[in-house]
Amino acid sequence: MQTLNVEFAERSYPIHIGQDLLARADLIRPHLKRKQVAVVTNTTIGPLYLEQLCAPLRRENVDIVTIILPDGEHYKNAEILGKIYDALLENRCERGTTLLALGGGVVGDMTGYAAATFLRGVPFIQVPTTLLAQVDSSVGGKTGINHPLGKNMIGAFWQPKLVLADTRTLNTLPDRELSAGLAEIIKYGLIRDPEFFVWLEQNMPRLMAREPAALAYAVRRSCENKAAVVAADERENGVRALLNLGHTFGHAIEAGMGYGVWLHGEAVAAGTMLAADLSRRLGWLSDADVSRIAAIHQAANLPVAAPQLDPDTYLDLMGLDKKVQDGKIRLILLQAIGKATFTADYPPALLRDTLAAAHA
Amino acid sequence: MQTLNVEFAERSYPIHIGQDLLARADLIRPHLKRKQVAVVTNTTIGPLYLEQLCAPLRRENVDIVTIILPDGEHYKNAEILGKIYDALLENRCERGTTLLALGGGVVGDMTGYAAATFLRGVPFIQVPTTLLAQVDSSVGGKTGINHPLGKNMIGAFWQPKLVLADTRTLNTLPDRELSAGLAEIIKYGLIRDPEFFVWLEQNMPRLMAREPAALAYAVRRSCENKAAVVAADERENGVRALLNLGHTFGHAIEAGMGYGVWLHGEAVAAGTMLAADLSRRLGWLSDADVSRIAAIHQAANLPVAAPQLDPDTYLDLMGLDKKVQDGKIRLILLQAIGKATFTADYPPALLRDTLAAAHA
Repeated sequence: MQTLNVEFAERSYPIHIGQDLLARADLIRPHLKRKQVAVVTNTTIGPLYLEQLCAPLRRENVDIVTIILPDGEHYKNAEILGKIYDALLENRCERGTTLLALGGGVVGDMTGYAAATFLRGVPFIQVPTTLLAQVDSSVGGKTGINHPLGKNMIGAFWQPKLVLADTRTLNTLPDRELSAGLAEIIKYGLIRDPEFFVWLEQNMPRLMAREPAALAYAVRRSCENKAAVVAADERENGVRALLNLGHTFGHAIEAGMGYGVWLHGEAVAAGTMLAADLSRRLGWLSDADVSRIAAIHQAANLPVAAPQLDPDTYLDLMGLDKKVQDGKIRLILLQAIGKATFTADYPPALLRDTLAAAHA
Repeated sequence: MQTLNVEFAERSYPIHIGQDLLARADLIRPHLKRKQVAVVTNTTIGPLYLEQLCAPLRRENVDIVTIILPDGEHYKNAEILGKIYDALLENRCERGTTLLALGGGVVGDMTGYAAATFLRGVPFIQVPTTLLAQVDSSVGGKTGINHPLGKNMIGAFWQPKLVLADTRTLNTLPDRELSAGLAEIIKYGLIRDPEFFVWLEQNMPRLMAREPAALAYAVRRSCENKAAVVAADERENGVRALLNLGHTFGHAIEAGMGYGVWLHGEAVAAGTMLAADLSRRLGWLSDADVSRIAAIHQAANLPVAAPQLDPDTYLDLMGLDKKVQDGKIRLILLQAIGKATFTADYPPALLRDTLAAAHA
C-alpha cells in the first residue's frame, strides 16, 4: 500500500493506493466521527463490492445504511440526488454520519455533493472503483450533479476525509472505461509532467494489460500531480484550471452527443486532440508533438477524432462551460508536451478552423 | 447609515444598516466581480422594491437578470431551487455573476444556497426586507432549503459579500412578521446580552411602533451579537448552537403544524417558552424569570403557548433536528436571563413534563 497526503490548510486527507484495500475496515474506522456510515453505490458496483466493504465494518459494530443508485451518467441529476437525501433522512442519519462513496465518478460526485449539502455538510469518504475516479474525481474536492443545460453545473467543493483507491477493483472495469481513465492519466503528463508522459509512452501496454504495479504507479503519480495543483489552488482561480485540458471541448462533445453516449474520458481524449490542434495552429506545438499525443491516445485505445458537430454547435455548447469570463471562452492549450496554459488570448478564427477541421 | 463588519479569516463582509439603502447602487457596485447581477425576489416583495433596487444599478450599466419566486415558506424546496438554476443557466450567468437576494429569510436562504452551489459557488449579496432576515438569516452564512422530512435539511455555509439592511423596507412588513422578527431579537438578549434584554423590555413599544432609530439600534445590536458568536464558530461546532434557543422546539412546532401555519419567529417564541419552562424545572430559572420572558414576548405580540401536539409527536419531530448526537436530543437551555447553555445533560422525564404541560 502506498499513501499520499493531500495537503490543505485545515483539512488534509490521505489517499491510500494498492491491492485489496476495500475490506480494510482498520483504515476506515479511525476516520469515522460516529459509528454510522451511509454507503452510496450503484446497481453495477453494489453486487461486486458492497458486501466486501461492509462485512468488516459491521464486525466492528458500525451501523451501515446502504443506498443503491441506478448506474449511469444520466442519473447524475437532481432527482436521484433527492433520493439520497430521502434515504439519509428516513434512516435518521445525523451530522456525525459519514457518507461513503463506493463506485466511479458519478457515485463519487453525487455522494460528495450530498455530503456537502446534507445538514449543511457531513463527513465523506471515497472508495473509487474506476481508474478515472481514482486519478481524477477522488482528488480535489469537486462534487456535483448535472443540469439539463450543462454538466456539473450544480455543485460544491467538499474534501473527503479519506480516499481508498483499491487497484483490484480495476479488474472488473470494462475495457472502454479503463481507456477513459487512461485519458486523464495522459493529461497529467501533457499539462505538467513530461517525464511521466515518456513513462506512459513506454508503459502503456502494461497499463492496458492491467498490471497491478504499473496501475498503482500511474494512479499515484497522477494523484500526486493533481494534489500538487489542487493544493495550490483549491477553488480553481488559477493553475487548477490546467487540469481541464480537453474538458471544455470534451464537455461540448458530451453535451452535443447526449450525456452517456461518449464516456467522459473519451470526450476528454478527443477534446485534448482539439486543444492540441489549436495549439499547433498557434505555432506552439509541432506536427511531431501532435503525432505523439495522438499516438499515446491510440495506444490507450482512445478516440482521437472528435464527433462531427457543427462548429457553431461546438461554440454554443462551449459557451455554457464554467470557464467563460465576460463572454470569451478561455481554453487550456499546450505550449509543449508537459506545459499547459490557460488563456483567452487566441485568434477566434483559429478556434473556428480547428472545429471546422474536426467537422470535415 | 451604520456599518458593522462581520469578521472571518478570509472573507469578512460589511452589513450596512439604515434608511433608504435599497437604492444605493454605490454601495453595491464595489462588490460586483463583473457587471451582472441575478436578483432573486418573490411575488410580494418584487412589486414593492425590485424597481427601486434595479433602476440605479441599470444606470451604472449593470446587466440584471430577475428571478421572481412564489412567496412562502412552503416554496423553500428543491423544485423552486431548480427554477433558480434554470433561470441562471438560461440567462447564461457565469462564475462572476453575483446573486442578490431581495426579500425575507426564505428568499435569502434559497438564493444563498443557489449561490453556494451554482457552478460550485458564485458571489452573493443580501438585501433582507424583513426584520427576521435582517437580524438572523443575513448574518452567519447559513443557507438552504427544506425537505419534506425536515426544515433546512439541505444546505451549505456560504457567506455574503455584503448585506444591506434597509429599515425602511420594514414599513411594509405585516404586523405578524414584525413580531416574528422581534422573537429573534429577544433571543439575543436571552442567550448572551442581559443589558440588551433590559433595553428591549423598556423599548418594545417603540419597536412595535416601527420607530426607525429604535429598529436600527435593535438590528445593529442583534447583528453584533450574532456576528460575535458566528465569528467564533462558523460551522456550529460549539457556541454557535446557542443561537438556536427555542429552535429545536420551534422546528418541531413548524413541522408538526405544517410549514407556513406558524411563522418561524412565532414557533421560536413558543419554543423559547418551552426551553424556559424546562430550565425552570431544572432549577436554573425562577418563576419570576419565566414571567419576564413571557411578558416581553407578549409585549411583542408573540405566542407564549405552544400548540397542543402530543409529547411523543414533539419528541419524534425534535429527533429529526440537526442537533441530535448519538440519538440524544441536545437543547439550548437558560441558566439565567442572558446566559444560555447547550446540553444533552438533563433528565428526559423533565423534558416530557414540559411537553406534557404544553399539551395540557
